[in-house]
Amino acid sequence: MKAAIIGVTGYSGIELVRILHDHPHVTLHSIHSSSHEGILLTEIYPHLKNHITLTLESINIDKIANEADVVFMATPSGISTNLVPQLLHSNVKIIDLSGDFRLKNQIVYEKWYKKTAPPQEALDTAVYGLSEWNRESIREATFISNPGCYPTATLLGLAPLVKNKIIDEKSIIVDAKSGVSGAGRSPSQATHYSETNENLKIYKVNQHQHIPEIEQVLSDWNESVQAVTFSTHLVPMTRGIMATIYGSVTTNDISIDRLVELYKTSYEGKPFVRIRESGQFPSTKEVSGSNYCDIGITYDERTGRITVVSVIDNLIKGAAGQAVQNLNIMMGIDEATGLHRVPMFL
Amino acid sequence: MKAAIIGVTGYSGIELVRILHDHPHVTLHSIHSSSHEGILLTEIYPHLKNHITLTLESINIDKIANEADVVFMATPSGISTNLVPQLLHSNVKIIDLSGDFRLKNQIVYEKWYKKTAPPQEALDTAVYGLSEWNRESIREATFISNPGCYPTATLLGLAPLVKNKIIDEKSIIVDAKSGVSGAGRSPSQATHYSETNENLKIYKVNQHQHIPEIEQVLSDWNESVQAVTFSTHLVPMTRGIMATIYGSVTTNDISIDRLVELYKTSYEGKPFVRIRESGQFPSTKEVSGSNYCDIGITYDERTGRITVVSVIDNLIKGAAGQAVQNLNIMMGIDEATGLHRVPMFL
Amino acid sequence: MKAAIIGVTGYSGIELVRILHDHPHVTLHSIHSSSHEGILLTEIYPHLKNHITLTLESINIDKIANEADVVFMATPSGISTNLVPQLLHSNVKIIDLSGDFRLKNQIVYEKWYKKTAPPQEALDTAVYGLSEWNRESIREATFISNPGCYPTATLLGLAPLVKNKIIDEKSIIVDAKSGVSGAGRSPSQATHYSETNENLKIYKVNQHQHIPEIEQVLSDWNESVQAVTFSTHLVPMTRGIMATIYGSVTTNDISIDRLVELYKTSYEGKPFVRIRESGQFPSTKEVSGSNYCDIGITYDERTGRITVVSVIDNLIKGAAGQAVQNLNIMMGIDEATGLHRVPMFL
Amino acid sequence: MKAAIIGVTGYSGIELVRILHDHPHVTLHSIHSSSHEGILLTEIYPHLKNHITLTLESINIDKIANEADVVFMATPSGISTNLVPQLLHSNVKIIDLSGDFRLKNQIVYEKWYKKTAPPQEALDTAVYGLSEWNRESIREATFISNPGCYPTATLLGLAPLVKNKIIDEKSIIVDAKSGVSGAGRSPSQATHYSETNENLKIYKVNQHQHIPEIEQVLSDWNESVQAVTFSTHLVPMTRGIMATIYGSVTTNDISIDRLVELYKTSYEGKPFVRIRESGQFPSTKEVSGSNYCDIGITYDERTGRITVVSVIDNLIKGAAGQAVQNLNIMMGIDEATGLHRVPMFL
Repeated sequence: MKAAIIGVTGYSGIELVRILHDHPHVTLHSIHSSSHEGILLTEIYPHLKNHITLTLESINIDKIANEADVVFMATPSGISTNLVPQLLHSNVKIIDLSGDFRLKNQIVYEKWYKKTAPPQEALDTAVYGLSEWNRESIREATFISNPGCYPTATLLGLAPLVKNKIIDEKSIIVDAKSGVSGAGRSPSQATHYSETNENLKIYKVNQHQHIPEIEQVLSDWNESVQAVTFSTHLVPMTRGIMATIYGSVTTNDISIDRLVELYKTSYEGKPFVRIRESGQFPSTKEVSGSNYCDIGITYDERTGRITVVSVIDNLIKGAAGQAVQNLNIMMGIDEATGLHRVPMFL
Repeated sequence: MKAAIIGVTGYSGIELVRILHDHPHVTLHSIHSSSHEGILLTEIYPHLKNHITLTLESINIDKIANEADVVFMATPSGISTNLVPQLLHSNVKIIDLSGDFRLKNQIVYEKWYKKTAPPQEALDTAVYGLSEWNRESIREATFISNPGCYPTATLLGLAPLVKNKIIDEKSIIVDAKSGVSGAGRSPSQATHYSETNENLKIYKVNQHQHIPEIEQVLSDWNESVQAVTFSTHLVPMTRGIMATIYGSVTTNDISIDRLVELYKTSYEGKPFVRIRESGQFPSTKEVSGSNYCDIGITYDERTGRITVVSVIDNLIKGAAGQAVQNLNIMMGIDEATGLHRVPMFL
Repeated sequence: MKAAIIGVTGYSGIELVRILHDHPHVTLHSIHSSSHEGILLTEIYPHLKNHITLTLESINIDKIANEADVVFMATPSGISTNLVPQLLHSNVKIIDLSGDFRLKNQIVYEKWYKKTAPPQEALDTAVYGLSEWNRESIREATFISNPGCYPTATLLGLAPLVKNKIIDEKSIIVDAKSGVSGAGRSPSQATHYSETNENLKIYKVNQHQHIPEIEQVLSDWNESVQAVTFSTHLVPMTRGIMATIYGSVTTNDISIDRLVELYKTSYEGKPFVRIRESGQFPSTKEVSGSNYCDIGITYDERTGRITVVSVIDNLIKGAAGQAVQNLNIMMGIDEATGLHRVPMFL
Repeated sequence: MKAAIIGVTGYSGIELVRILHDHPHVTLHSIHSSSHEGILLTEIYPHLKNHITLTLESINIDKIANEADVVFMATPSGISTNLVPQLLHSNVKIIDLSGDFRLKNQIVYEKWYKKTAPPQEALDTAVYGLSEWNRESIREATFISNPGCYPTATLLGLAPLVKNKIIDEKSIIVDAKSGVSGAGRSPSQATHYSETNENLKIYKVNQHQHIPEIEQVLSDWNESVQAVTFSTHLVPMTRGIMATIYGSVTTNDISIDRLVELYKTSYEGKPFVRIRESGQFPSTKEVSGSNYCDIGITYDERTGRITVVSVIDNLIKGAAGQAVQNLNIMMGIDEATGLHRVPMFL
């Protein structure tokens, strides 16, 4: 299978390059960027030397549609809105890592993204690529809208509780923390080393564009879910997301062991979700460099609240890794193909 | 005023040394440690050279009681329980930075600390040193139990809401994050650089000993408060605590501007609490190296929840700085004496 | 004394604000920036709230010359070249923290800085403000060119060896390492968190503009010094510089103890240089937040080489702190006034 | 091929586990530790879940010798000295990652390591596993002494210069910097997060046990090499080593381009050494997570000195990766087998 990556110089882009390099059934055919045309990728990223000999090309949609079997869109917000519709009528499969096609409702999109929404027809074609819970639709899809990093961690953590109506739908609070690579490659004051290092910041309080994405999926799963509280913090580390999730139980008939059991059952046969034993919680390094989502869960009788801790590597399960997982599902091969890596931990 | 510090080699201890060094009315008279007797403090901490010429002494309670006007206990958990009762009948003022005397109820203490509680009589003598809200009692006190770092950030953030019954007392969730210096100076796997750096961990879920401390104060303020959910995370940075606090409003008659106004009014005349304008939130570096607690607040109509963000430098407002603030109040001088430092920020 | 700061929004600028805030004899009168005119400094830097109420002004040289007693230039490279000549004929004292006036030779300046040099007349007026070794000239000066951060650490480390001709002048190699704040406040790829964190980079190999500054001073001290090897590395931390200095001895009649003694004698009466005992070396945190330069020294009989380790806080002794030290000397007061702070260490 | 790892719970040990997991021709057969017998490795390292199901065994040398084809010793200093001689007469191949067998001279070993040396006979059997330069001996070996992390970076950086007598052998200075993982997994004050983070330290000045290892190899290559100056610094990051190497040229007939050419020629056919183009230098992240050693080189006419910058991932090319590379060479298969990973970079 021949792959093209549009927006390859961003962090999701080079992470795709790294992951596809190990994939036995995919060849990276061409790489595209709105700048740097004609330059070797290794001039920008010398760490890729000996592995990648491709030269950056401009974004020629027709050529891409003709030559590639799958196109990954690793572009900033707003670019896919224009490019994907041009690709939709070709035979190429599309996996969009941006947020442009995640929200089905144009009005909601425009409210949260402050950008013009994609055409409704294109939106309707997009299949939301939360691999663990949308496998059937992904298998049939030609166009995948890959989930956001925060929604991936949050939704995998909440799924068993919301689907099984174990928590009060109005009580959901997600306190999420991310490493800085989630902000991408463009330098800014917000990601300037001297002000980011040794600092903990909260940002976009109640205004993060991942809020409606989370709510859309949760309400698909359980129509009683309406608004959730979701906060995002910037942690002085490069990789990793932790979502600490709180919810009040609807019944007292709860035990930690049964919760752990429920999670294990819910994720049986899903190779990238690992449930910690009772009393154990994952840290972000325990999934770093891998496609895993690790989840710990507990229940506090004093408060009647469940706490779920869900961690991912934001660039892998939160972006490029899940994109490849979705490609595998679309191709009908083992979804873990090319994604077997042991977490780096250190 | 002559001060003695017991447990000076820990992080709270050397932070006291640094702060007292600038205090115009206090002289550091003697420093004590259970080990290192007879060694210059600058042999352990060469950064103190040119400033401190004291030699470490053993913990001779009688000598300390005779010579010092105030004793700071900067000892690990369980030491003050034994030492403070020996000092209580002397004329020396005592400020205990450990958790031994914070919980008034021996049973609660033993449940959460897994240690034998101090004698009830000594517990009854201790005044809880949350400077901003206990000024009157502190002024009259001879024995201060200095608040924990997490409770300081949390309680200052919650006070206006809980005292004014603006949030549902059952809805309080505090998601707290701390730098690693809070774990003290003793090396351990949990604070080993290679496993702490680039890692985000949750710990002591629903079991942190600061939970009953927070609940005790909140229920003093508002007897409707019972159990709160309080979680602690270890962030890869040395200094700083952020408490992200969530609560559901009891009425719809809320606006962000009025909340900000309420906070400003509540902290008027309290020099170490700074309230951010509407839409602004503090980061931990903005208080680093200072005795400030900076607070941002907002309200989300969609969820009916208030979010409060409260940050402190855990070693200063969360320990040594508040201890000196309390000493100032006890001495009847300006509570900011010796504590005017501008945050380092960088 | 009334001070003005031009270029206050950069890191040297706000560090000056922080230090001058504690100075008993200096009042910060006005702050200037080429942008942000009319905005409160606390809008850009909320950590300064409660301390600074000044509003940013444009750079009106005449007004500054009329109102201020001393002007600090904390501007990027190339600005002082134009502004300082306009100030030289007023009565205001000038302390320039940029590199514009450090090199006395216009040709050398233009070679290394790739910029037009200041007028020779103005260059001749500038006194190089290495406080420990230029005290007499500084006392008489009206215009100080404040040393670079790397040269400060390097020159203080080398002075006793070069002045006393203990090392072969051709053998000097300085391997210097800096925290990221030395690169200033403007975001760039080179200081973007995700690519700076957990990374160690060498930069400007053999081309750093501090090389001719170091050589100029060394050859003033000892005319046998010509070219030195000086390398700069970017270390994933915010503050701190370490210069590891190597030189071959000219005689075998050397012992570590005598070297330590020589250093102690050389820096007697110089309050901001602390010499470590034989076998001890400083780390950067041991001076962080202070105006100290800490130095360790040893000699290896196997190789006939001396190793000197010199550390400073690049923003304090390497910039704003030394600037204030120089102002104190110019004012004829104790050079440590306002600079007594104990290092933060943590 | 069946592998056993002794000392698996240390950082080199788990890095071996991670790398061998991807090796197509090696199966991890058993793991051994002096503690934790009978415990699943995933209980200590939950990040290995889904990949490793082995239980820790005690160090039963006879059983290991009978069952394994190759034994990796990932033990602390001094353990291999006793264990390896017991294995030498079996048929098992041995790769020792400790420093016990690197120095051929017992007296030199005891001077630098302050431990009893291994028997001379066993020392004579050990082949020093610097893969790029010892390939022939490694191919025939049954017992490999794997190089230290610092020596690997240093020797690969120096080889072309020393072998070709381009630099004055007396002029060699190596200023080396390491991430903290090189200090291993045992907590200590020196690696305690709060004192290591945001700090740069020099340590073991002129006393590091890697000095004689470097000198031994260099003098094998060129008998004129005697003592070199080699310094080690601890950098606040987990992975990575950079050696900045200085040497004076023996002739003026030098150009940067020819130096780069020499390095490219020297490392032709050596897949894990990548030479940067003229004027380019590697940073540690550019090899992080890979078995590469990246090298940049330049020459300064002003000083007559060459500067070489050599970077590796200390846990991979500096330990577990080179160990597997050596195993591949011993097995007679492509030396890059199982080691093709693209560096993580982020």
